[in-house]
Amino acid sequence: MPPTGAGQDHVTRTLAHYRTLTIDTLLADVPTGGPRYLYDLVAEYPRRWGKGLRAALCLAACRAFGGTPAVGLNAAVTVELFHNAFLIHDDIQDQSEQRRGARTLHGEYGVGVALNVGNMTNLLALQRLAANRQALGSQVSWRLFEETQLMLRHSVEGQAIEVGWIRDNVCDLDADDYYRMCLKKTSWYTCIYPCRTGILVATGRPDAVDVLDRYGWYLGAAFQIQDDALNLVGDYARYGKEIAGDLWEGKRTLILIDFLRRCTGQERERLVSFLGRTRAERTASEVRWLHRRLLAYDCVESARCSARELAAAARAEGERALGPAADTEDGRFLLDLTDYVVERSR
Amino acid sequence: MPPTGAGQDHVTRTLAHYRTLTIDTLLADVPTGGPRYLYDLVAEYPRRWGKGLRAALCLAACRAFGGTPAVGLNAAVTVELFHNAFLIHDDIQDQSEQRRGARTLHGEYGVGVALNVGNMTNLLALQRLAANRQALGSQVSWRLFEETQLMLRHSVEGQAIEVGWIRDNVCDLDADDYYRMCLKKTSWYTCIYPCRTGILVATGRPDAVDVLDRYGWYLGAAFQIQDDALNLVGDYARYGKEIAGDLWEGKRTLILIDFLRRCTGQERERLVSFLGRTRAERTASEVRWLHRRLLAYDCVESARCSARELAAAARAEGERALGPAADTEDGRFLLDLTDYVVERSR
Repeated sequence: MPPTGAGQDHVTRTLAHYRTLTIDTLLADVPTGGPRYLYDLVAEYPRRWGKGLRAALCLAACRAFGGTPAVGLNAAVTVELFHNAFLIHDDIQDQSEQRRGARTLHGEYGVGVALNVGNMTNLLALQRLAANRQALGSQVSWRLFEETQLMLRHSVEGQAIEVGWIRDNVCDLDADDYYRMCLKKTSWYTCIYPCRTGILVATGRPDAVDVLDRYGWYLGAAFQIQDDALNLVGDYARYGKEIAGDLWEGKRTLILIDFLRRCTGQERERLVSFLGRTRAERTASEVRWLHRRLLAYDCVESARCSARELAAAARAEGERALGPAADTEDGRFLLDLTDYVVERSR
Repeated sequence: MPPTGAGQDHVTRTLAHYRTLTIDTLLADVPTGGPRYLYDLVAEYPRRWGKGLRAALCLAACRAFGGTPAVGLNAAVTVELFHNAFLIHDDIQDQSEQRRGARTLHGEYGVGVALNVGNMTNLLALQRLAANRQALGSQVSWRLFEETQLMLRHSVEGQAIEVGWIRDNVCDLDADDYYRMCLKKTSWYTCIYPCRTGILVATGRPDAVDVLDRYGWYLGAAFQIQDDALNLVGDYARYGKEIAGDLWEGKRTLILIDFLRRCTGQERERLVSFLGRTRAERTASEVRWLHRRLLAYDCVESARCSARELAAAARAEGERALGPAADTEDGRFLLDLTDYVVERSR
């Protein structure tokens, strides 16, 4: 394992390279013209800075399994488009205010416009998927379509779990509940799907697509926990979302679940009542109180500990799955990503 | 042409028959289990009474072009699923309160849940589409997928036109603007797509799919205008949506566009100012005033006149396109639908 500094440089360089390749292709393919408030706004989130993690996973998995970036590019653009559609809809669902350092799309243009732009972004993803047929043939393209349906099913079910917990004010959750939700809501579309499609387009072999599943599952969980932590202790200028937004939204993070387990009966009562209100009914002083309690109980540090363990498990699974390819440029990138996702500040 | 009464009985019977066939299959295929607030709610709108127009168009077109209902059923379920997803999202976008005689999904369960249920409904539609591959083969299934992308593009663009008009408070519109919006927003997914996919699965011939396009285009416009009229003069118990809801929502209907052309300068000023406010800022007395003016200027009757002309044009185009099949049971149904869409009270 290289020293963290060198590994991270290599990771950020590779991320930037694959991100540029993917986002440039994505943006070049967004139709011009058409009605107002549509295609120009499809390009809005992709134009803001993003890590490009999903595209990079797809392209690196593709190369590590013998493919070229050209072969993987359609799949990488597809996953980035689905990701951006997911962000637009997720921001509406969570009533989020900030995304990638600026106002959310629905905050700027209203829910009606934003929901529609999310739908168009999903449609452009499907069109990109269909564009594979020429290059990859009917058989592999159908399998890609099936992989996409599977990923979308997991994502929408994961989203349902999360909005259901908030709606029913579910407070009796443990870490396993969180991980199950996280597998569906985050790991599938952020890590597992990009790896599976990258492998599929590289090898053309449907039987090989699942070899990085465990790697992706652990990587996605580690990524999500770090995201939850940055939401509480991050620097807005780098993180790009409102700090403590998850508390305003009543998100059931591992951090919050851990606090519910550790806190006093009185604190629990106060928190349950806070979570029982709507976002609009919550006050800044309650959010400040909760924020301080989470830090005082070391819940952020404890969750980050779990994230580091997951990252180590992801590395071990990745090494096993990659075999000799672990020593290639893209293999090393995939392995070093496990450190990146838990050390990143944005 | 049979007398209207007999024609309408035949039409409502056939609609009911195809609706039952399609909705039963649709509901049987909605997964059970899974997280709360997801699959049970996917079934919510389909379980409420609907006309089943889109499924019937698909199955009738399929039979009129030599197919069996069994061959067309997947396509009919697909179009009904897309329709229900569209309704869920459209109700969020328009902040509608009532749908099919009960509260809208987002009114009952919140925007977060409803948006997600709409996404799952779209996904189930895609899965139904993919299920055609076994029966129809790869070539025709790909073409169905392409037809679906085309339909979704038109629908989302049509939706963007409408929300854009409301957002920018566009008041200088003429009938042609309305018809262009209506072609994309209504005709494509309500009539043209069901006919095209019905023909495609029946014939397996991609070159024949467009023969009912003009029929579907006119039928959809006539259908939409009658829908706009029922919104103002319908009976809530039959129509199932809040009466004058379109006025609350600031919808640019043919009726409103006609009024803007006919009214006095003072009335126009008052209307433009009314339309410039958000839904929440509009008052019941303003809505009542507008409602009365639209009726006083005969704008509803005038629009229904246009709808009847469109219905007649749809019939003529249908006869031309169907040829000898115009004399089959399903051919007659397709032709008599042209009367139904403008005479219906729900």
